[in-house]
Amino acid sequence: MNFLRRRLSDSSFMSNLPNGYMTDLQRPDPPAPPPPTASSPSQQGAAQLAQQPQQAQSSTGGSSGFFSSFSSITNVVKQTAASAAGFVEQSAPSPSLSKKFKILLVIDEPQHEWAKVFRGKKVLGEYDIKVEQAEFSEINLVSHSNGTCNVDMQVIRGGTKVVRSFRPDFVLVRQHAFSMAQNEDFRNLIIGLQYAGIPSVNSLDSIYNLCDKPWAFSQLINNQKRLGSDKFPLIDQTFYPNYRDMITTPSFPVVVKIGHAHSGMGKVKVDNVSDFQDIASVVAITQTYCTTEPFVDAKYDIRVQKIGTDYKAYMRTSISGNWKSNTGSAMLEQVAMTDK
Amino acid sequence: MNFLRRRLSDSSFMSNLPNGYMTDLQRPDPPAPPPPTASSPSQQGAAQLAQQPQQAQSSTGGSSGFFSSFSSITNVVKQTAASAAGFVEQSAPSPSLSKKFKILLVIDEPQHEWAKVFRGKKVLGEYDIKVEQAEFSEINLVSHSNGTCNVDMQVIRGGTKVVRSFRPDFVLVRQHAFSMAQNEDFRNLIIGLQYAGIPSVNSLDSIYNLCDKPWAFSQLINNQKRLGSDKFPLIDQTFYPNYRDMITTPSFPVVVKIGHAHSGMGKVKVDNVSDFQDIASVVAITQTYCTTEPFVDAKYDIRVQKIGTDYKAYMRTSISGNWKSNTGSAMLEQVAMTDK
Amino acid sequence: MNFLRRRLSDSSFMSNLPNGYMTDLQRPDPPAPPPPTASSPSQQGAAQLAQQPQQAQSSTGGSSGFFSSFSSITNVVKQTAASAAGFVEQSAPSPSLSKKFKILLVIDEPQHEWAKVFRGKKVLGEYDIKVEQAEFSEINLVSHSNGTCNVDMQVIRGGTKVVRSFRPDFVLVRQHAFSMAQNEDFRNLIIGLQYAGIPSVNSLDSIYNLCDKPWAFSQLINNQKRLGSDKFPLIDQTFYPNYRDMITTPSFPVVVKIGHAHSGMGKVKVDNVSDFQDIASVVAITQTYCTTEPFVDAKYDIRVQKIGTDYKAYMRTSISGNWKSNTGSAMLEQVAMTDK
Amino acid sequence: MNFLRRRLSDSSFMSNLPNGYMTDLQRPDPPAPPPPTASSPSQQGAAQLAQQPQQAQSSTGGSSGFFSSFSSITNVVKQTAASAAGFVEQSAPSPSLSKKFKILLVIDEPQHEWAKVFRGKKVLGEYDIKVEQAEFSEINLVSHSNGTCNVDMQVIRGGTKVVRSFRPDFVLVRQHAFSMAQNEDFRNLIIGLQYAGIPSVNSLDSIYNLCDKPWAFSQLINNQKRLGSDKFPLIDQTFYPNYRDMITTPSFPVVVKIGHAHSGMGKVKVDNVSDFQDIASVVAITQTYCTTEPFVDAKYDIRVQKIGTDYKAYMRTSISGNWKSNTGSAMLEQVAMTDK
Repeated sequence: MNFLRRRLSDSSFMSNLPNGYMTDLQRPDPPAPPPPTASSPSQQGAAQLAQQPQQAQSSTGGSSGFFSSFSSITNVVKQTAASAAGFVEQSAPSPSLSKKFKILLVIDEPQHEWAKVFRGKKVLGEYDIKVEQAEFSEINLVSHSNGTCNVDMQVIRGGTKVVRSFRPDFVLVRQHAFSMAQNEDFRNLIIGLQYAGIPSVNSLDSIYNLCDKPWAFSQLINNQKRLGSDKFPLIDQTFYPNYRDMITTPSFPVVVKIGHAHSGMGKVKVDNVSDFQDIASVVAITQTYCTTEPFVDAKYDIRVQKIGTDYKAYMRTSISGNWKSNTGSAMLEQVAMTDK
Repeated sequence: MNFLRRRLSDSSFMSNLPNGYMTDLQRPDPPAPPPPTASSPSQQGAAQLAQQPQQAQSSTGGSSGFFSSFSSITNVVKQTAASAAGFVEQSAPSPSLSKKFKILLVIDEPQHEWAKVFRGKKVLGEYDIKVEQAEFSEINLVSHSNGTCNVDMQVIRGGTKVVRSFRPDFVLVRQHAFSMAQNEDFRNLIIGLQYAGIPSVNSLDSIYNLCDKPWAFSQLINNQKRLGSDKFPLIDQTFYPNYRDMITTPSFPVVVKIGHAHSGMGKVKVDNVSDFQDIASVVAITQTYCTTEPFVDAKYDIRVQKIGTDYKAYMRTSISGNWKSNTGSAMLEQVAMTDK
Repeated sequence: MNFLRRRLSDSSFMSNLPNGYMTDLQRPDPPAPPPPTASSPSQQGAAQLAQQPQQAQSSTGGSSGFFSSFSSITNVVKQTAASAAGFVEQSAPSPSLSKKFKILLVIDEPQHEWAKVFRGKKVLGEYDIKVEQAEFSEINLVSHSNGTCNVDMQVIRGGTKVVRSFRPDFVLVRQHAFSMAQNEDFRNLIIGLQYAGIPSVNSLDSIYNLCDKPWAFSQLINNQKRLGSDKFPLIDQTFYPNYRDMITTPSFPVVVKIGHAHSGMGKVKVDNVSDFQDIASVVAITQTYCTTEPFVDAKYDIRVQKIGTDYKAYMRTSISGNWKSNTGSAMLEQVAMTDK
Repeated sequence: MNFLRRRLSDSSFMSNLPNGYMTDLQRPDPPAPPPPTASSPSQQGAAQLAQQPQQAQSSTGGSSGFFSSFSSITNVVKQTAASAAGFVEQSAPSPSLSKKFKILLVIDEPQHEWAKVFRGKKVLGEYDIKVEQAEFSEINLVSHSNGTCNVDMQVIRGGTKVVRSFRPDFVLVRQHAFSMAQNEDFRNLIIGLQYAGIPSVNSLDSIYNLCDKPWAFSQLINNQKRLGSDKFPLIDQTFYPNYRDMITTPSFPVVVKIGHAHSGMGKVKVDNVSDFQDIASVVAITQTYCTTEPFVDAKYDIRVQKIGTDYKAYMRTSISGNWKSNTGSAMLEQVAMTDK
């Protein structure tokens, strides 16, 4: 195993990041994104769509040329990464879509052009992949218990309103289905897709059950009980269903995480009892739960990516100076990968 | 198998009904509830609490004497039923609680006196069962990732405010955790109990995932796909994530079920297109999903109860005349039971 | 006074309609909107912006040429109407905005081009009017108690994202500030504008107090008490704060109006007790108030417009066949105007 | 004018405090509340109920004997204060209620026994006053546009459930009608009372328009513009409709007040930019507006009470040490009163 400390290099990692994860990165763009030289099978579910045996592919390919250091991750890179991801088998490019095709609905922002990624790919041997891409806020649907799911889509592309209606065969969800911040509850659409039995990466069941972070953390706690805290370490955390029992004062500083949100939303570092009382009075207004955990003065996060038998590790450093490394500017470097 | 058509007789069935299920029954009370003559093991989870091998018990005992017909179900019966349920092994009555005990938190209305049910029972051989009972609205809690769960309880019993604080070893949930009607969202408490890993009947996982009825119905649809509609018949249903696509007109009359609620709340029978458009305009105000299904002009419901290898079937008839048999007055009769 | 029964003719009326009022009109567009020949002072507030004495203007001008009958009202007409409205004094057209100007924020949909209406107009003798137009959903603001109000605006115009930041001198609100349908609560922006004391047509105070229709109706009831039901007739109405007391059965058919919404949303015609019970169970899910009133089987609405000493009356007929004349297709005809 | 620095002495002040204002006071109770010696006309609205000319009464009476210093305000005092308030003319005590009476609905907590205050009082010359008292959460109503208002009330008094149904002639609101903390939105009841035209202290119009604190502050700003900041000083404040524009950093420390709440709920003192960013991320979860204002390190509040031509001033000191003087322990002293 080699530990190469490089600035962000691995494009397939980027394509696996949840959307919005890095939206706030504010550093200047790199002059030109390096060309991806190979693709790696990155998402089990998409592979399942293809129902083809995965070939062992070199996961080093995508990143092998990157010793240059550029300190920021931009959407340009992310798109390139996405196009390099190569979820399905290669095939001769088909200029126009054949009559036999499967419809893949991708829930994502428009700047990630998933149609490019799947251009010329086939599934089930002979089916073209027709990509329909929209954000959660741009779609609606009707599902029947007999398994049909009609998706309506209204998107604005290049200043033009595009209206589409179709029945997806598969869905790839790349946006958060729920956040307690404004106007971000799309669980009704997740239910609708599940209702019609549309297969999905990640599973709709996992998406639904990840819409309350402490509910997901409960599962981690359960894993820890089974495996032991040595093998499965977790941060020590306390759950409050609401503000009312936020009386006992933990040791400070603590991080209070309020409700279910992303990208550093609803998180506060609290240094003393007086501030903790203030925050409890605010949790009352949010009308939801919160957790507290010891503040860890981290230099960086380590993120581990595992696909099949391959894995990579990344280090994320806050540039903005804020204690939240997922807010404002951040730097991502690959620090480890599978030894081949 | 014998089919005895009797007015409600089986008390152990009653104790398995979700709370509020029959609250609106308005007929006069029966003169006196018949004494239960035997108990049946009724809840797997409670048995799991006891961790004792279940003895084969006569499930006919509880109802054998009931050829008298009384036409209403009252809380008195329900309580008697509960006391007859006999969840755990019999033991010599202990006048005061021994030092070794397990705390069972029961989430239920006060009129069902669960302490009586468990009086003198033991679990794990030697532990007394201490019952703490409250409604969802009367408790709060703090959970730690190390597994402790401190429950605070403020109940009014006999005009006196009772404040309790304790750590439950087990929880029995007998109220709905969530309804879209006013002030009935206790999912934060369900999360808190799961967070601390408190065992429960039903499982907290099932309770959480039953907080969106169409989400639960998705699972039924999935079962149907696996087993076939012959073996697993389901009503034909359509899911709308919101009012916006409620344009296509189903064949009438249809039943529109809005959001997640109980006891007939949010359900409307619609007879024609014009009324359907009206209802769609109301779904807009609810800001949630709905389903439509053909109206079935039923004479009664059949409810099947299965515990271990025993089962019973009941017939529920609407008395109020409303098409909803779970609203207003209803009559419940046992129509079938296991032949022994 | 003459009663001319003409299809829609008066353009200044159109410019006074609230937005969305006629969005659903589906009839074919008229071949060409007739040129407006004169303008009428239409909005007191805008006149107040100009702080100029109103000249007596012929209110017949705008409609005098319209004996042709075109049966639909289109946005083209509406825009023309708006351009004809002539809120402020005429002046020589200025090719480019002078250094002295006042900023008018118009909250409206983009198809109504308010900049055209105010082109070349001046206020306070010498100030140009700079129009900034956006929908509620496209703006945000920060207000200070010293009277400054910084509005941020992100609009997409012709496929291009336009970002603006400015301090409005006046605001013209042409969208509903609040609806209980999804994602339509902009009362926080109304508060922000009031906070900075920005003058407005209509007054921000009236907008705020019209965000609960039964609250506004209370004022009408109060007027009736003062003036008598002869001089100030009102429909007989009942207010329910929630579903709980919806027990007494009114005489049928009744119209149930749920919550605060527009364009026929949340309104249901109910024909009998059973349906009324169903609707009550749905009001529970909306978690808001409702009113009931006798259903009036109307052939048309009469709408009266009064500006200064001039008034006009219009007749609105439902074309769609729905009992709601503000849903689907409708026809508007001028039926009366001030005799000059 | 004399400035007597005494611990809380004036009972009529207490009866004018909004409910919950002092709930958290934790100091020991005074040995015995001093007997009120005279009553003062305290509430214009109640006087209006009586429709009697106000007699000039000595407002000094109620507090004249209080040179003893007791350091805490208790409910006992508050009740005594209420009984001393003497809203209406004195009359001979009537052992049982006569047939002629007016119903006064008081929205208040049960510990304040308003029936005692009005015992034996009459209005309109000959009408007894029948007091019906309940909390907002205990009542429901139906209002008709013809002016009738049927109030349903379910209260638990002394362990017994009391159900009442009546038509109030007047309402005295002593609880907050709205808070963004959990389950405290009773604006639907305010609308219902206004709908039926029930007279009220304070006016229902003022209650409705005080349900968004920045909306009320807008009115104060307006007053300041009219009167000048010398005559009408206000704290310098900034209003944010939501978290999105909380970017500009004010000078620290600032107080951030989130949404509409009472008793110190939703208020945070923020010391630096990093904490301000944290709080902005929490405001996102609250999904409401907030204001910021400079933190004033106050030794005490001054509260001025003005009734008719009489006024008094009080000083409130935080005892708990928290910067919020309306949270935890506080001490109230009378510091000034009208010179007679």
